[in-house]
Amino acid sequence: MPVITAFERSPDGGQGQARDMRVRWALEEVGQPYAIRPVSFTELKEPAHRALSPFGKIPTYQEGDLVLFESGAIVLHIAESHPGLLPEDKIARSRAIVWIFAALSTIEPSILERESATLLEQDQPWTEERLPLVDDRVRSRLRDLSVYLGAADWLDGEFSAGDLVMVGVLRRLNRSGLLDEFPNLAAYVIRGEARPAFKRAFDDQRAFNTR
Amino acid sequence: MPVITAFERSPDGGQGQARDMRVRWALEEVGQPYAIRPVSFTELKEPAHRALSPFGKIPTYQEGDLVLFESGAIVLHIAESHPGLLPEDKIARSRAIVWIFAALSTIEPSILERESATLLEQDQPWTEERLPLVDDRVRSRLRDLSVYLGAADWLDGEFSAGDLVMVGVLRRLNRSGLLDEFPNLAAYVIRGEARPAFKRAFDDQRAFNTR
Repeated sequence: MPVITAFERSPDGGQGQARDMRVRWALEEVGQPYAIRPVSFTELKEPAHRALSPFGKIPTYQEGDLVLFESGAIVLHIAESHPGLLPEDKIARSRAIVWIFAALSTIEPSILERESATLLEQDQPWTEERLPLVDDRVRSRLRDLSVYLGAADWLDGEFSAGDLVMVGVLRRLNRSGLLDEFPNLAAYVIRGEARPAFKRAFDDQRAFNTR
Repeated sequence: MPVITAFERSPDGGQGQARDMRVRWALEEVGQPYAIRPVSFTELKEPAHRALSPFGKIPTYQEGDLVLFESGAIVLHIAESHPGLLPEDKIARSRAIVWIFAALSTIEPSILERESATLLEQDQPWTEERLPLVDDRVRSRLRDLSVYLGAADWLDGEFSAGDLVMVGVLRRLNRSGLLDEFPNLAAYVIRGEARPAFKRAFDDQRAFNTR
């Protein structure tokens, strides 16, 4: 059974924003049982954890001799090892993988920049004036994504690992109000959250983080 | 023969910072000939290009019915379709893919944030005071990567698609001076740039962008 690491207690108190949520969700989608190993903030920075995760982050994924980090790589590994998260057709499969990268490499950086502004630079004198610029950079990405998605349920045909990672990334905006400016994206996230596998993963991480 | 899109003329004038460079390099590593289709800044935002690349970016990759965007996804596709950029061994292969994600998802966002600060926010009143904070966030990632790499030539055994993407990402710091604070990373980038396939790709994009 694979073992994944998670924060001993997530700073969000169980809102499912920590990146183990994406991996839990993927494992629930494919029906693969797993175990959680909690890591404290002190342990994150210690050599034993760094040996698994060079940047001192969670999640990691261990299964026999295989040790992975980076939630995107872990979700891709799960999707390639079990049916259910990638289409059989080769072209459709490559397209689904494109969306994993688009979520992490085109959408998420603008959201991370916003988090730097609102969390790390919260008390800086420039933040109030600067935040609208940062929000506009997020909006620009969301606008393109919204146009692309249109009235479709999922990004490229059936629900895939690409949707799973994209919904996970967009959920970081839950409390920003930005998602509500793009109703089809807000509905897309709700559609993802309504999946039984999402709910199981979400409830498990909430129980874990509020134990 | 695959066709990839590139800026009609890269804003960097041929320093190989545009993301088609990573795809050119990957194709050179595996010995796959390709064609370049230039796209103007106007065309980038038009429906015909958006149909290939929903965020209006380059590169795209077209081969028969397959249309991909996201340089990371394209490099992964090339690496999976030809020998040379991923190990045969399954565990080593998953590890190499981890490093593609680490480059794009852990290292590059901090570099993109620095580019926002120095390019988009160049003339803002807060930028001079703020830039050291942004630099420190880049340094923090580089420090972890430097510790991990140690005296090794490549991130995980032989040169792989993970190294190719990581070197491509780190090259964005070429003119920042930050890389020089971590001599083993500076040497790692030079090692990547010394590969014959890198040189061919670099010379081709320079000739293209200075034609």
